[in-house]
Amino acid sequence: MAKKALLVVGDGMGDRPVKELGGFTPLEIARKPFMSKLAKEGECGIMDPIAPGIRAGSDTAHLALLGYDPYKYYTGRGAFEAAGIGLDVEKGDICFRCNFATVDEDTFVVIDRRAGRIREGTHLLAQALDGMEIEGVKVFFKESVEHRAGLVLRGEGLGHKVSDADPHKEGEKVHTVEPLDPNDIPSQKTAKIVNEFVRRSFEILRNHPVNVERKKQGLPPANIVLPRGAGTAPHIPPFQERYGLTGACIVEVGLLKGVGRYLKMDVIDVEGATGSLDTDEQAIAKAVISALNDHDFVLCNVKAPDVAGHDGEPYKKVEAVEKIDKMLATILSQISPEEVIIVLTADHSTPVSVKDHSGDPVPIVIWGDGVRTDDVDCFGERFCARGGLGRIRGFDIMNILTNLLSVQEKFGA
Amino acid sequence: MAKKALLVVGDGMGDRPVKELGGFTPLEIARKPFMSKLAKEGECGIMDPIAPGIRAGSDTAHLALLGYDPYKYYTGRGAFEAAGIGLDVEKGDICFRCNFATVDEDTFVVIDRRAGRIREGTHLLAQALDGMEIEGVKVFFKESVEHRAGLVLRGEGLGHKVSDADPHKEGEKVHTVEPLDPNDIPSQKTAKIVNEFVRRSFEILRNHPVNVERKKQGLPPANIVLPRGAGTAPHIPPFQERYGLTGACIVEVGLLKGVGRYLKMDVIDVEGATGSLDTDEQAIAKAVISALNDHDFVLCNVKAPDVAGHDGEPYKKVEAVEKIDKMLATILSQISPEEVIIVLTADHSTPVSVKDHSGDPVPIVIWGDGVRTDDVDCFGERFCARGGLGRIRGFDIMNILTNLLSVQEKFGA
Repeated sequence: MAKKALLVVGDGMGDRPVKELGGFTPLEIARKPFMSKLAKEGECGIMDPIAPGIRAGSDTAHLALLGYDPYKYYTGRGAFEAAGIGLDVEKGDICFRCNFATVDEDTFVVIDRRAGRIREGTHLLAQALDGMEIEGVKVFFKESVEHRAGLVLRGEGLGHKVSDADPHKEGEKVHTVEPLDPNDIPSQKTAKIVNEFVRRSFEILRNHPVNVERKKQGLPPANIVLPRGAGTAPHIPPFQERYGLTGACIVEVGLLKGVGRYLKMDVIDVEGATGSLDTDEQAIAKAVISALNDHDFVLCNVKAPDVAGHDGEPYKKVEAVEKIDKMLATILSQISPEEVIIVLTADHSTPVSVKDHSGDPVPIVIWGDGVRTDDVDCFGERFCARGGLGRIRGFDIMNILTNLLSVQEKFGA
Repeated sequence: MAKKALLVVGDGMGDRPVKELGGFTPLEIARKPFMSKLAKEGECGIMDPIAPGIRAGSDTAHLALLGYDPYKYYTGRGAFEAAGIGLDVEKGDICFRCNFATVDEDTFVVIDRRAGRIREGTHLLAQALDGMEIEGVKVFFKESVEHRAGLVLRGEGLGHKVSDADPHKEGEKVHTVEPLDPNDIPSQKTAKIVNEFVRRSFEILRNHPVNVERKKQGLPPANIVLPRGAGTAPHIPPFQERYGLTGACIVEVGLLKGVGRYLKMDVIDVEGATGSLDTDEQAIAKAVISALNDHDFVLCNVKAPDVAGHDGEPYKKVEAVEKIDKMLATILSQISPEEVIIVLTADHSTPVSVKDHSGDPVPIVIWGDGVRTDDVDCFGERFCARGGLGRIRGFDIMNILTNLLSVQEKFGA
């Protein structure tokens, strides 16, 4: 059997020394016997997801971890978010993030940017808008979670440099979308179409049964759609085309599912994977083991450490790390280093003291047959920095893996 | 006296942990007092010949070690192989690897792609073909070892995107060379000329005295030349022009002699340097000491570890390393660190478990006056990974050396 590879990413798992933890990081003090087993038996190092000091997003970091230079391929989150909620996105499409919102029906002043954080019926509202055509441009529209949605425009001669319809605060009228440069003809065209889409969304939604029912219940109606954050969909060579490897993504959040779908990897949904601290890590472990049966490469991202980091909760972050360790325990009970190469790392640091992504590097371990072991026997930011890998970049991982899997072409003779 | 530099490359010397060697690498367990003397007195590190995980060829790696980015300068092995067998190659020349082969004289079906692995008389056959002119294009042709040869076309308006005349298997007719893209006019021209060259090679060789004699002895005649692997010769600035240093190459195999000639370095042949495990390392040592007398920079490559790696023979690889150590012993008896900076490294790993080049990094030590020493006192993959150099790239070596030699221009004020 050909060797396989598993890339386990603890989202935002890197951190800085935390006073409440005696100057250790959450990862350093966590009980993590299986992470440390990997460290002891593998080769460790420190990794800059993009480059030293660069604050990576989850999307740009995952592009880098999968061997795609984000400075070359990343054109904004829009395309990945749209793909993540299940919209079909093609190169050149113009993608928007949207809110269902509530406007005054006479003045178009925004009363509630989130339509009372509407949860029910948004798929019906979205269905009523999806599939329309405006001046030969096809319009694809789909709901996401709560009041959020995605909009994709597909047609000839469209630009993405346009302003937002969303005024970003309540009490202001819906903005007319304008090209950022008045001489940019393709973006002029896009602006015209978005304005018409916003107008039609109001016409179609104002008396939609879902909103009639909401009004009855005294809830703000979702009577308009406000697009923002226009971006063009980039061309990115699919994962399998690039590496000759079949790839699966077991990731919890829509943005990363979007990255996986965009690369035409198999995106596998796991029941119980909540993307939060209560996620069912055993369900994820089982999905990973199963995916390794019929894929050469599996990416698994667990979101919990990032959530705890954003919340500034050191002990919750420790627990999140321990969840990932329990997931690894199950995975390691089913595989051998002769069969599967494992890389364990993070996509970025989300220090609890910062409550946001930081540019601090993250620990990494590579485990499996053929790896040059080192003296590191505990997984953690500062333990791994003494390892044999030295300091590498996220972009290096796939080259290192295809080397260990013996599927990389030689460069030269 | 100005300081000099010696770059010693154990070809393919890096390896992975080997079970039969107790989990050590051949380099780690070899008796290598002089390599370890360099490690003890110098500064160690780990080096990616090209970039982390990238499987380097010997040619691309040596370009990088000599400070030439292979992604910029490398256009294929053809030009270096042609230069290596002694053909004069200029920028824009179209270079081919060739076989002397045996074809059926009526049907042109290939009977033996290697003409019975012909050894004798190929220089006479080559002489008969060298120097012809076809439609204003000059043809240079020279024999290499056994049935191998090189072909260089020089003229205006030639392209290199053409198919092979060599069918790559016996029992098939000689292929007509075609441009890969029918609208590529320069490659059309090249195809036409190669086809005419193949035709003439048959006319000239079929009744050549060497072949008449072979037929008498019942050996397959070398009655045709089959070109393959067309490549264009790149422009690469000569070594001395680039660094202001006179350079010598003491390397064993044709491909690397070609790289040296291409960079207009002095390529010094050493009697007894076989490119194999039986090479005379003392003869190489003497040639190195002599070359250091009249050159600022000497590159010395010993092929033996790579041969043992390709053969999958761990103990032979240990012996190959020990040969290089004995060579270093002799060199070190004749020089001082005040006079010569020594870099000892490898151009890539050729793990005995892989039997081919791998993308694993290689150890490196820099020894000589002015170097910041570290705690490493044994040369080897994992020992050096703890060294003061950290993780560098092959491309960095020449900048580090010209810095230590005090011959580098300051960048900025």
